[in-house]
Amino acid sequence: MITIAVDAMGGDVGLNVTVPASVAFLERQKDVQVVMVGDETQLKQALASANAPMNRISIMHATQVVDMDEDPRSALRHKKDSSMRVAINQVKEGLAQAAVSAGNTGALMATAKFVLKTIDGIERPAIAKFLPALNGGLTCMLDLGANVDCTSDQLVQFAIMGSQLVQAVQPDMTEPRVGLLNIGSEDIKGTQVLKDAYQLLQQTPLNFIGNVEGDDIFAGEVEVIVADGFVGNVALKSIEGAVKMMAQVIKEEFNHSAMSKAQGLIAKPVLGQVKKRIDPRRFNGAIFLGLRGIVVKSHGGTDAVGFNYALQEAYHEAKADILTSIQKGVAAHLAPDQAI
Amino acid sequence: MITIAVDAMGGDVGLNVTVPASVAFLERQKDVQVVMVGDETQLKQALASANAPMNRISIMHATQVVDMDEDPRSALRHKKDSSMRVAINQVKEGLAQAAVSAGNTGALMATAKFVLKTIDGIERPAIAKFLPALNGGLTCMLDLGANVDCTSDQLVQFAIMGSQLVQAVQPDMTEPRVGLLNIGSEDIKGTQVLKDAYQLLQQTPLNFIGNVEGDDIFAGEVEVIVADGFVGNVALKSIEGAVKMMAQVIKEEFNHSAMSKAQGLIAKPVLGQVKKRIDPRRFNGAIFLGLRGIVVKSHGGTDAVGFNYALQEAYHEAKADILTSIQKGVAAHLAPDQAI
Repeated sequence: MITIAVDAMGGDVGLNVTVPASVAFLERQKDVQVVMVGDETQLKQALASANAPMNRISIMHATQVVDMDEDPRSALRHKKDSSMRVAINQVKEGLAQAAVSAGNTGALMATAKFVLKTIDGIERPAIAKFLPALNGGLTCMLDLGANVDCTSDQLVQFAIMGSQLVQAVQPDMTEPRVGLLNIGSEDIKGTQVLKDAYQLLQQTPLNFIGNVEGDDIFAGEVEVIVADGFVGNVALKSIEGAVKMMAQVIKEEFNHSAMSKAQGLIAKPVLGQVKKRIDPRRFNGAIFLGLRGIVVKSHGGTDAVGFNYALQEAYHEAKADILTSIQKGVAAHLAPDQAI
Repeated sequence: MITIAVDAMGGDVGLNVTVPASVAFLERQKDVQVVMVGDETQLKQALASANAPMNRISIMHATQVVDMDEDPRSALRHKKDSSMRVAINQVKEGLAQAAVSAGNTGALMATAKFVLKTIDGIERPAIAKFLPALNGGLTCMLDLGANVDCTSDQLVQFAIMGSQLVQAVQPDMTEPRVGLLNIGSEDIKGTQVLKDAYQLLQQTPLNFIGNVEGDDIFAGEVEVIVADGFVGNVALKSIEGAVKMMAQVIKEEFNHSAMSKAQGLIAKPVLGQVKKRIDPRRFNGAIFLGLRGIVVKSHGGTDAVGFNYALQEAYHEAKADILTSIQKGVAAHLAPDQAI
């Protein structure tokens, strides 16, 4: 049985998203139980109206909620009984295998780092996400915003973590290809940090294939893409903007005239499939890597369908025991002679 | 009459793209003449078979061509009679108002910088491009790859140049809104360079509205987006990758079955409109800003339709006399007391 601690109050909506998502999640995964963390009275009510399966749900009361725009340091100092922090505490104490929150990203990262601490050999945790590749596979991209400035050593640590994550959740993928996000394929491209990271990555046992560019992100030619948090975040948000723009253009063109509306009705089943394949909710759930515990961040504005995907992401990682994989990977890198 | 110097040999294809594009361009713009720079014999043949209007075309022989993967320093040193360089020389000597090339970007920038020099007050030229906004407007984004590392002063210079460019080509846009590409809207976000640039931009007379994120690029809430060349390039290429991915998903879904193929046939006129609106060829033509002359870079792999758009971009900029605007903008910034 896997236990997931849910920050029930986090996100733009809170309970009205986290409770139905958790109920749907429990219906789908039978080997799971959840700890719902938040205001006990409100939680009891919400769970009762959702006909939640209480035999696999426990409620943990938390008196505070971190605001979506609260300063992370303030949250860390003044919100010691927040739903977010209490959920992470469950992981720390071994009572849950993962925590999931749709709350304030900065506060969640600061709290997770403070409570769980980083794995030996990892200086800074990173935020990772799986993106769909055109060949049907998945590409793990990191860091997506935890670290604005990174050293070349830290980029190598991200590469190790991403590589281990991919192997843990896709056991048939024994040698994930790793690419460094850059602005050209030659090893002399990019900043000094990237040039150094390129050299360092070549010396690791990782399957490092060199630099990749922004338009390679969906090409499926690598399973891991490494970037510093600033660049990774800009790339991810630019992609989100482009996808939104495309969806808007399609909508506008099909709404253009009576004729195009009729054509849109006929094409609706196919357009529905397209929409489904690029639905960002299906890729909701960013993973905090490098901590001594699994924490998954859901998009703050997602709905119950999206939050359910974040819960499943946490479930798969807990089930694949990614922590052990990452610890092994880092240890082998730090002491290569002792590696198997 | 505006004269455009065309690097006829540049790009993945060369003459078979540049010649038909130039002919189509001359048919469209009657107040234009072009100087086709390249191998004279090949050019004469190609122009003859294209029935080119020779009364508005002159041929300038150049004995060399810069390879697409040639090192910029090598091109600068050993290719002094390249089609690219001779085309830029025409601008330098006042014989053309703009040069257009689909050749090697790094070599083109190095050559343009060496031959034309930068405008007083501009430390480094930047690459700019207009992207379509969802409100029907255009957003000028820079730098897209000329400068991997930038200082906050240089980012301010980019903001001034972008702002002047927008005003010059869209005279009704008197106070273009300027945004700084960052990973959050608060002024404390991002790298130290960006934090400093934020403070500096607030002190300029520019219409600086603060930080924008990757998913704001198409939102039409700013007319100018400023980034260092590394981040701008990653953002642009990530967008290109996302658009390509979406197009591929749409294609796959409509080709999925006999039924979806039939639905695709019916929706074809609308899908054609969608394709047209997001056609990257329509936005081909990146502008080198900050030099004492107009140079436009076409995508190396584009076809005649795309290269025609790059020629039109150069034409509009020459016609709008963007150099004078930028020089005025920079001078006003350097000596604000003397500004009007």
